[in-house]
Amino acid sequence: MTGNRRWTLARYPEGRLGERDFALLCDTDEMPALTPGEVLVLNRMFAVAPTIRNWLRPASTSQRAAIPVGGTIRGMAACDVMASADPDYPVGTRMIAMSEWADRGVIRPAKAPVPVFRVPEGMDFAEAMGPLSLNSLTAYFGLLEVGRPRAGETVVVSGAAGSVGSVVCQIARIKGCRVIGIAGGAEKCARVVAVGKADAAIDYRAEDVCQRLRELCPEGIDVFFDNVGGEQLRAALDCMAPHGRVVACGQISTYDQGAAVQTGLDMMKVVYGRIRIEGFVVGDFVDRADEARSQLAAWVRSGALEVAVDLRRGLDQLPRALVDLFSGANRGTVLVVND
Amino acid sequence: MTGNRRWTLARYPEGRLGERDFALLCDTDEMPALTPGEVLVLNRMFAVAPTIRNWLRPASTSQRAAIPVGGTIRGMAACDVMASADPDYPVGTRMIAMSEWADRGVIRPAKAPVPVFRVPEGMDFAEAMGPLSLNSLTAYFGLLEVGRPRAGETVVVSGAAGSVGSVVCQIARIKGCRVIGIAGGAEKCARVVAVGKADAAIDYRAEDVCQRLRELCPEGIDVFFDNVGGEQLRAALDCMAPHGRVVACGQISTYDQGAAVQTGLDMMKVVYGRIRIEGFVVGDFVDRADEARSQLAAWVRSGALEVAVDLRRGLDQLPRALVDLFSGANRGTVLVVND
Repeated sequence: MTGNRRWTLARYPEGRLGERDFALLCDTDEMPALTPGEVLVLNRMFAVAPTIRNWLRPASTSQRAAIPVGGTIRGMAACDVMASADPDYPVGTRMIAMSEWADRGVIRPAKAPVPVFRVPEGMDFAEAMGPLSLNSLTAYFGLLEVGRPRAGETVVVSGAAGSVGSVVCQIARIKGCRVIGIAGGAEKCARVVAVGKADAAIDYRAEDVCQRLRELCPEGIDVFFDNVGGEQLRAALDCMAPHGRVVACGQISTYDQGAAVQTGLDMMKVVYGRIRIEGFVVGDFVDRADEARSQLAAWVRSGALEVAVDLRRGLDQLPRALVDLFSGANRGTVLVVND
Repeated sequence: MTGNRRWTLARYPEGRLGERDFALLCDTDEMPALTPGEVLVLNRMFAVAPTIRNWLRPASTSQRAAIPVGGTIRGMAACDVMASADPDYPVGTRMIAMSEWADRGVIRPAKAPVPVFRVPEGMDFAEAMGPLSLNSLTAYFGLLEVGRPRAGETVVVSGAAGSVGSVVCQIARIKGCRVIGIAGGAEKCARVVAVGKADAAIDYRAEDVCQRLRELCPEGIDVFFDNVGGEQLRAALDCMAPHGRVVACGQISTYDQGAAVQTGLDMMKVVYGRIRIEGFVVGDFVDRADEARSQLAAWVRSGALEVAVDLRRGLDQLPRALVDLFSGANRGTVLVVND
């Protein structure tokens, strides 16, 4: 067995995240013996998600533990079990689990912070981490269980070109809603319409979001699925229809600011409009993950759902891939193959 | 019939509301003849509520029309019908209705912006506008239907010495919750515990609200009933328990700022905490008003519910009474008798 490369936090990011905030180490020691309940995994593919950024600070608002300076970066990975001290996860098990940005690592599946997904026969890792990933489950449950759109309603999605947002747009269309996506730049906006099947897209870099929302949603927004927060949340709240629902899924616009501090919300609009703003985490719906994956897979087969994957190669590319999420340089769900 | 005195808006308030923003006129003309559906009322008692402040600006975020400069101030009043062109509201009908700050006025009961409440035989106006008022209905439906507290949960109420807040505290206690009230000043805090039956009170003028909430709610806030907004909402949001609910009822701290603009909310707390922030207006529950009034009356009879009334005399005192709400100089629900 060769050395185990792993990415650690070199320092707490100040302002914008950069590759300089990470350090690649290579351990040459033997892996320690497994204690009961542990498995040794080979990390084959990593899902690079914006939420990782939230763990890279001393006092995290995340529900999971913050990563200290010197700690190994965590994230969802597709893994092969290489050695096992948990009879439920024997050698050869293929699974998606919260792992580390490393070649190999030790996981305790029964106590994983995110339930482990055993990848069934015949499903490749890119499918499991693309169309059937936690991102898609987040879109599925967030839109349907928290946003609860009805056919004919207007759904607005921020971060609409992203891994979650693009799936939200498509599910909203499947459910008979009018869909407006907000994204940054002409290329992403074109993708929101072409791949996300939105009725219209708003380019927040080039357009006045509030004004465009008023034009495109003359009767107001019924569901705002928010991945971005900040100014886009403020603008959407101004345009909500009575009894509108804001699905608080993420706040990527604020992750680089140290805390997701929202300004400028007109709370009387919330009162008089009977607006519901509700946060959720996909982990609350894991007992229904099979139902969601079956439905998502059926939509993929029928062509109703398409998930763009931005596939990259090489564990050394992980920090770059994460940084790219914040400059918008990614093209869909970013997966990094460890080859 | 003598002249009809009425309070008008002299100018849009700048910053803090003042008595100088109002002007008392006296019309000596005859009242015009009633058209079908109208009734002429004598306003016997006025309920002075903070929400009136929201109507005194050019571009209101209110669901009702703003009051222009020169317009007569509106508010809930207890009225006697003196002349009627609506057979459902004959002369002698006693009712609570959206009326004007005037001796007399014309109302169209069937098209009233807030449904008219016919005061039953044997109920005096102070009871109808105190324990069984819209304020109490607001507390009842906001807490029970939006906040949905369960026995044993912790309920925190801002504006806890106010007309709505004090009733919220008491209903929460009746439902078996732990109750913490936030109010301004030692006297109000004493009232929150003595009248509101809260387990503890926080004086936001003298104490660090966030720190006190952490001490008093070590397991977090399950329901935050918010009448105040601003810094108190920010502090409460920091202390919410997972799946906590924020009932957005009012934002009195911001009414004097021109718009109820909320700053500093940690939206990732909303996401990770699965927090629900939901606005409501009591008007959505009017078809259940009888149910609520019966329950409230039963609680009053049993001694479980007590509503402090700050009774004042004289139509000339109306502006002072409204201004007092924003300096905290009132002692309970402010009712002004027109004698």
